[in-house]
Amino acid sequence: MSDKRRILLQLDTDTQPSAFDSVVALDAGAEVLLRYGGVRPETVTPLVHGAIFTRGPKDLHRTAIFIGGSDVALAERVRDAVRKALLPQWGLSVSVMLDPNGSNTTAAAAVRTVLQRQSLNNATVLVLGGTGPVGQRVAYLAAQLGAEVRIASRQLLRAQETVEQLLACLPSARIMAGETASEDGLRQAVQGCQVVFGSGAAGVRILPRTVWLGQPQLRILVDLNAVPPSGIEGVEPTDDGVEREGVLCFGALTVGNLKMKIHKAAIAKLFERNDLLLDLEELFALSATM
Amino acid sequence: MSDKRRILLQLDTDTQPSAFDSVVALDAGAEVLLRYGGVRPETVTPLVHGAIFTRGPKDLHRTAIFIGGSDVALAERVRDAVRKALLPQWGLSVSVMLDPNGSNTTAAAAVRTVLQRQSLNNATVLVLGGTGPVGQRVAYLAAQLGAEVRIASRQLLRAQETVEQLLACLPSARIMAGETASEDGLRQAVQGCQVVFGSGAAGVRILPRTVWLGQPQLRILVDLNAVPPSGIEGVEPTDDGVEREGVLCFGALTVGNLKMKIHKAAIAKLFERNDLLLDLEELFALSATM
Amino acid sequence: MSDKRRILLQLDTDTQPSAFDSVVALDAGAEVLLRYGGVRPETVTPLVHGAIFTRGPKDLHRTAIFIGGSDVALAERVRDAVRKALLPQWGLSVSVMLDPNGSNTTAAAAVRTVLQRQSLNNATVLVLGGTGPVGQRVAYLAAQLGAEVRIASRQLLRAQETVEQLLACLPSARIMAGETASEDGLRQAVQGCQVVFGSGAAGVRILPRTVWLGQPQLRILVDLNAVPPSGIEGVEPTDDGVEREGVLCFGALTVGNLKMKIHKAAIAKLFERNDLLLDLEELFALSATM
Repeated sequence: MSDKRRILLQLDTDTQPSAFDSVVALDAGAEVLLRYGGVRPETVTPLVHGAIFTRGPKDLHRTAIFIGGSDVALAERVRDAVRKALLPQWGLSVSVMLDPNGSNTTAAAAVRTVLQRQSLNNATVLVLGGTGPVGQRVAYLAAQLGAEVRIASRQLLRAQETVEQLLACLPSARIMAGETASEDGLRQAVQGCQVVFGSGAAGVRILPRTVWLGQPQLRILVDLNAVPPSGIEGVEPTDDGVEREGVLCFGALTVGNLKMKIHKAAIAKLFERNDLLLDLEELFALSATM
Repeated sequence: MSDKRRILLQLDTDTQPSAFDSVVALDAGAEVLLRYGGVRPETVTPLVHGAIFTRGPKDLHRTAIFIGGSDVALAERVRDAVRKALLPQWGLSVSVMLDPNGSNTTAAAAVRTVLQRQSLNNATVLVLGGTGPVGQRVAYLAAQLGAEVRIASRQLLRAQETVEQLLACLPSARIMAGETASEDGLRQAVQGCQVVFGSGAAGVRILPRTVWLGQPQLRILVDLNAVPPSGIEGVEPTDDGVEREGVLCFGALTVGNLKMKIHKAAIAKLFERNDLLLDLEELFALSATM
Repeated sequence: MSDKRRILLQLDTDTQPSAFDSVVALDAGAEVLLRYGGVRPETVTPLVHGAIFTRGPKDLHRTAIFIGGSDVALAERVRDAVRKALLPQWGLSVSVMLDPNGSNTTAAAAVRTVLQRQSLNNATVLVLGGTGPVGQRVAYLAAQLGAEVRIASRQLLRAQETVEQLLACLPSARIMAGETASEDGLRQAVQGCQVVFGSGAAGVRILPRTVWLGQPQLRILVDLNAVPPSGIEGVEPTDDGVEREGVLCFGALTVGNLKMKIHKAAIAKLFERNDLLLDLEELFALSATM
């Protein structure tokens, strides 16, 4: 067995590399971090080459790359540049994980939380704040699992754009847009849903209790906002499947705990092989083992 | 007992995080450093949140924050921003140490050095270069210990400003300003003092031998300038209480050794609990145990 | 024996400190890296002081400095500034290694590879791409070993400048310039040489097979270009002394393996004493022990 230290290159699009991602990586088994801030697609090639040209193929699973940052779209372009710089055809590769702003692990945790209670196949699912990084990913996973998904936003146009992007990836999925600027729009969006995810901005209430109360089909509420007040009124951050008014409630801290487990398991997994890409779908699959 | 590694976030206001602070932290028990340069009050919140949201309350004493940098006033504003971002009411806190440019540990060491020989209560104390970061802190500690303190500067106005700032913190203290641009002013400032601290700029002589020689009350000279020539003529960097012309002399290396011990003890202490603030007074109190 | 961790200050002139240099340093025995990007001669003094003022003389061999970066000339100015900030007269020094862009270790490996088969004393040696960082260093070492050296460049003027610089360091050496923009010039440059080094730009063919084929004196070809196509046509990256058309061929990966061994041995050596400078000549001397 190799005794080389497990080195994680933390590539962050923000000027200051995330301290959150650093601490989690260290606690999950990375022994040394090589942290880079302000990373751009056009600057990653020498970093990737430094990762793959320094150790022999049998030791390359002890080096890995984590891509983060608060600009999710930019981080995805960094991911593409990283993959392009790898040379898997010669065995010169390292495993890569993408989790900008925690969006992948959070979405995986949110959807997995629901799946532990209810199948999403043919369920009707509403994603409030569905145009943000986490909301989009929740919608993607739910649609892939066979749900009919409603993307809600205060601006219909943005919701429609997100729907188009998702359909480009999942052409046979059932995804539609909804506008929730008014309480009427909101009520219409909730009507007929079995599951509602709240993934709006931190500290913003996006669903009043009066709107979800008494909806006959509604079975599960998942709130992803940890900063008071909760995004979905009536759901507490620590709720872990408690039944309120006949609806199972899951709060942000409960989902956050699972998110942390997925994040740590993923970091550990990076060091098992040198050819993994742990992006949204792989992280969601990984969450099934928890 | 937790086996999580001891992680220190080193927040430095300078572009390049201090190598000095890094090496000392590593030698004092920090296992991993997360180093940040160019830190500003408005950029610390995500860093603090990364520190407090990643480990459970029982492990949070294994994460800590050190604030440094050559701009002492800016570092103090960073300290305020860090404390504001902590959430001690929920147990989500980490211990914090402030030592920009070594000013706190140096001042603590300088005053402690004197205290090992002589009480400062009712002593008359002169602080040459008293408007600089170290000088101000020496004056603060001496005044708090009951000394009558003279803040000396080549510019009287700056000395008066410093006196006002100190009196705002210590309203009942006895602190006054003195101008030392001329040898006459200098001689007047030294007259009647039992203790003189030299904390001027590196490599600048601020007190000629002829001025302090033969002052009947003078008992102790402490020079804090390690770069030749010594700030107080006649005091050698390695002087450790040697008597010269009837005066006990302490040089910069002697004070520096104690400063290093305080610095290391403080870093070690950061990892004992998760709710400490180690600022000037706490560091001075800590120095009593050495 | 000291149990202080081996700390390497990695000073890099590039904005992003080299990941390559970091991984190699960690694998070669550095326990903690303090990495700095964008280092300039005028910013190194506090970093060097942080290295030498934090540990006692008996522990200073556990701290060292590595200088790298893609701008070789700038890195050399950083080296000069680092040496100026050390205080060896007081025992306050740490060992320093210079290897910007791998130029020193690569040149040392290339010349050592040849020496294992053939003396360079009085040999005639051609350095294609001889004006680049690696080429210049290969030429320097070969000239010092008594070879007659031809510096080849597509621009005669640049070759002449390099010759002048080398002669300023090695006044009694035999070094001359050659222009190789045309195949005629190239053929003339190769004529009469026993050894040809190819150190041109990555991925650029600088010597066609037809030019070197059938040269009666030619004994050894060394190609330093790892990116296809090889710089010297007919030499494969993995060639390790294989005879082709009567000429011993050495490829970029073979030289690269020796380069890596020199690099790692040098890092390890940094931590044996606190007064070494490992620059081109010292690294070349070190390569003799492999």
